[in-house]
Amino acid sequence: MRLSELGALLGLPMSGGGDPDIRQVAPLATAGEGDLAFYSPGRGDPVAMARCAASALILPPGVEGGTTPRLIADNPLLAAARAQTRLCPEPRPTAGIHPSAVVHPSASVDPTATVGPFVCLDAQAVVGPRAVLRAGVRVGEGSRIGADTVLFDNVVLYQGVVVGERCRVHAGSVLGADGFGYVPDEKGNLFKIPQTGGVTVEDDVEIGALVTIDRATFTTTRIGAGTKIDDHCHVGHNVDLGRHVIMAGMSGVAGSTKIGDRVMIGGMSAISDNLEVASGVMIAGMTGVHKSLTEKGIYEGPRAMPRREFVAFMKAGENLAKLKKRVDALEHLQSPS
Amino acid sequence: MRLSELGALLGLPMSGGGDPDIRQVAPLATAGEGDLAFYSPGRGDPVAMARCAASALILPPGVEGGTTPRLIADNPLLAAARAQTRLCPEPRPTAGIHPSAVVHPSASVDPTATVGPFVCLDAQAVVGPRAVLRAGVRVGEGSRIGADTVLFDNVVLYQGVVVGERCRVHAGSVLGADGFGYVPDEKGNLFKIPQTGGVTVEDDVEIGALVTIDRATFTTTRIGAGTKIDDHCHVGHNVDLGRHVIMAGMSGVAGSTKIGDRVMIGGMSAISDNLEVASGVMIAGMTGVHKSLTEKGIYEGPRAMPRREFVAFMKAGENLAKLKKRVDALEHLQSPS
Amino acid sequence: MRLSELGALLGLPMSGGGDPDIRQVAPLATAGEGDLAFYSPGRGDPVAMARCAASALILPPGVEGGTTPRLIADNPLLAAARAQTRLCPEPRPTAGIHPSAVVHPSASVDPTATVGPFVCLDAQAVVGPRAVLRAGVRVGEGSRIGADTVLFDNVVLYQGVVVGERCRVHAGSVLGADGFGYVPDEKGNLFKIPQTGGVTVEDDVEIGALVTIDRATFTTTRIGAGTKIDDHCHVGHNVDLGRHVIMAGMSGVAGSTKIGDRVMIGGMSAISDNLEVASGVMIAGMTGVHKSLTEKGIYEGPRAMPRREFVAFMKAGENLAKLKKRVDALEHLQSPS
Repeated sequence: MRLSELGALLGLPMSGGGDPDIRQVAPLATAGEGDLAFYSPGRGDPVAMARCAASALILPPGVEGGTTPRLIADNPLLAAARAQTRLCPEPRPTAGIHPSAVVHPSASVDPTATVGPFVCLDAQAVVGPRAVLRAGVRVGEGSRIGADTVLFDNVVLYQGVVVGERCRVHAGSVLGADGFGYVPDEKGNLFKIPQTGGVTVEDDVEIGALVTIDRATFTTTRIGAGTKIDDHCHVGHNVDLGRHVIMAGMSGVAGSTKIGDRVMIGGMSAISDNLEVASGVMIAGMTGVHKSLTEKGIYEGPRAMPRREFVAFMKAGENLAKLKKRVDALEHLQSPS
Repeated sequence: MRLSELGALLGLPMSGGGDPDIRQVAPLATAGEGDLAFYSPGRGDPVAMARCAASALILPPGVEGGTTPRLIADNPLLAAARAQTRLCPEPRPTAGIHPSAVVHPSASVDPTATVGPFVCLDAQAVVGPRAVLRAGVRVGEGSRIGADTVLFDNVVLYQGVVVGERCRVHAGSVLGADGFGYVPDEKGNLFKIPQTGGVTVEDDVEIGALVTIDRATFTTTRIGAGTKIDDHCHVGHNVDLGRHVIMAGMSGVAGSTKIGDRVMIGGMSAISDNLEVASGVMIAGMTGVHKSLTEKGIYEGPRAMPRREFVAFMKAGENLAKLKKRVDALEHLQSPS
Repeated sequence: MRLSELGALLGLPMSGGGDPDIRQVAPLATAGEGDLAFYSPGRGDPVAMARCAASALILPPGVEGGTTPRLIADNPLLAAARAQTRLCPEPRPTAGIHPSAVVHPSASVDPTATVGPFVCLDAQAVVGPRAVLRAGVRVGEGSRIGADTVLFDNVVLYQGVVVGERCRVHAGSVLGADGFGYVPDEKGNLFKIPQTGGVTVEDDVEIGALVTIDRATFTTTRIGAGTKIDDHCHVGHNVDLGRHVIMAGMSGVAGSTKIGDRVMIGGMSAISDNLEVASGVMIAGMTGVHKSLTEKGIYEGPRAMPRREFVAFMKAGENLAKLKKRVDALEHLQSPS
């Protein structure tokens, strides 16, 4: 695609000399002919920028780029992501149902959707326009897949799971398995609480590989629109996860907890059950949240505290043994033996 | 089902006026016609109770319920779980082997069992009465599935895995993958220790989605009867996990560790290898267990200590920087410069 | 196999009386007729050794073994692992493509390879000599599997994933799912950064069950030769993991971090993005690494510090509440109210 054509699609002004043919976006350090690289002062490497052999650049206004053809964007990274989306669109498999798929007569598949090999669609399952179900996907009874959503290989949806439009669920993830709920019986053994609710994933959600989102006991476990969930995450039953939440890899939210909008959850963090986390809260990696976080801020630590306090704690901790010796010495001064 | 019929099945006395038809259990706040709600003082919301529009209630003895028809139970939550199990039983798929399944001639499938699409049963595999293997399940050579056990979609059992009766293994879990064992060779490279043992899961065990239970090096990795394991958990090779253990989401037990009966393991906790944890011990979430826990109690922290101590530690920690300043001041008083 | 034959294969001298037929390696405590047990002073149980009923033993030079036939090895555990590999080789399925597999016409499968039931090979996929793809494996467009590599059931390789020779990838693992990368757009919503790179796994790597290794944004995520990764681990996009690394269960490495050779990562540890960890570093279990570790050593703690310091910190922490009271008392002495 000509740089001018790309600029027009993205609504970005062009500068420098020439109008090269662009194949893909590439990083400054390795870009060559046919590549479009991007740079922002403070975020990129100025040396790599100076040496960059890309055919074209994306630069913010006011940055010198020599005679290299370039697009001018306030946010070069965002512009580069948009450019790559245009230059290297994910290939769409051809529409239709693979002959090996097992489709219940009452299931409904839009003629523009793709249902891959070894997929199973149970009774009343619905697959929307242009949705793609790759090989080995299972869709339980009454579950529904919205338009333009992609379920990668071996994703399992139990019954009563609703996935919105333009979602992506990566390979091996499981939506709608039973929530983890038991009640001790008269002998102290664990009696299973039936989990008869569902899972609702709103529009524009991306879910990584090997994620679990459990079905609610009665109502529905909800993932808000625009939320992004990384690999190996776990969302427990009855959780209400807000909109535009970021949940980094290997983190978990336990049953019935309510997470506000635009919350950021760092990797390998765990949030206990029946809590509330206010919109906009940031939770650092490896944090344990044991009580509700009702005020905005950055929290960290095995029992979440404001990040600044936790870092001071750990810093002090590095010298805690020394501090103990200093107190020993002070006591000795008070009462020399 | 009539309330009186349900009460008779559960052995619960009935009270209040009328004998409504009940479809399902529902929570106080959302229950309506045809629903059965439940309430215990101190565990439920009295306001929701007062406003509840359910057709019937489950209440403990001595709680006022107006004229609403009701069942009287010492433990309303337990009674509600039992009621729901009767009212909304999990639908049983029809018995038989799907034509797409690949079944080794020496495998044995009870005629009352269900073997779903794309299942593979290797040589000498055994599937017991009324067992259900949903789509894409793999059963390795010589592995055996007990009566009334359900393996959800894409569960993988390697060779030599024995699963008892009335178990449930949720989608994507892997039982019997190689334990993680290597020995450095003469060059310091890692030589694999063959893992030739098996996995034994006793009766009435529930295993969540995307769980791994590794095969033993020589003998068997054991999961005791009645134990419940949540999503994303990991049980290493040669582990002996007791009976009626609760293992919350994303927790792990490393190789050869022995866990007693009725141990509770909180979410995202890790127990190191070659340890013993006594029966009845409770391990809080995000705890790291580095030495054996031989006495009952509640433990917490990145190096497990009694919970009370850990909480005090973290509380003190919130003021550790201040404490350091106070020691600075005391020293200054002793030797003003 | 005769003990003498085994000794000749392994290059180990024989001693004691007789030349028994050996079926397998077994531990000292349970070994019986036909078993080969192994023992090292300081690593095995001398009582079990004295009572051992094995047909033969592997012992280090200079250890008394009575008249039991034995092989002499400097490293009995290594010798036992090698013996077991000879005695109980993993059965190789017959070569060929199962008729249910869906193989793109442009895919290439070596005639000595095994492609199991319900496998999908996309365009340009390549399966090398003697490779084994068990049931339900997916190989994306242009992905390549080296000679003698085994992919267990339901492993998913996206497009552009290269796996070397003699690798093992256990059931349900996902290689090449999108890295987790977004950039906020003008409205603060998250715009996806396309992930167009690949994954490269070098030779002799073993990857456990339910592991994720994400594709790079532009280049490739690399797993060095000889590295061993346990169940539930996560390797983020653009990570460069060195050679002979050990990554224990449930640990994760975030995007673009570079891990040197022979690094050991303990279970449930997390390493943040864009860091460097020097070759030979040891990271204890449940450790959070927030900054680069450039010097060899053992590190531990939620914000990694030298292990000795962290253990002292936690020990001191057990008495931190007491320390606070002591400071209270000292202050009171200075200024009695």
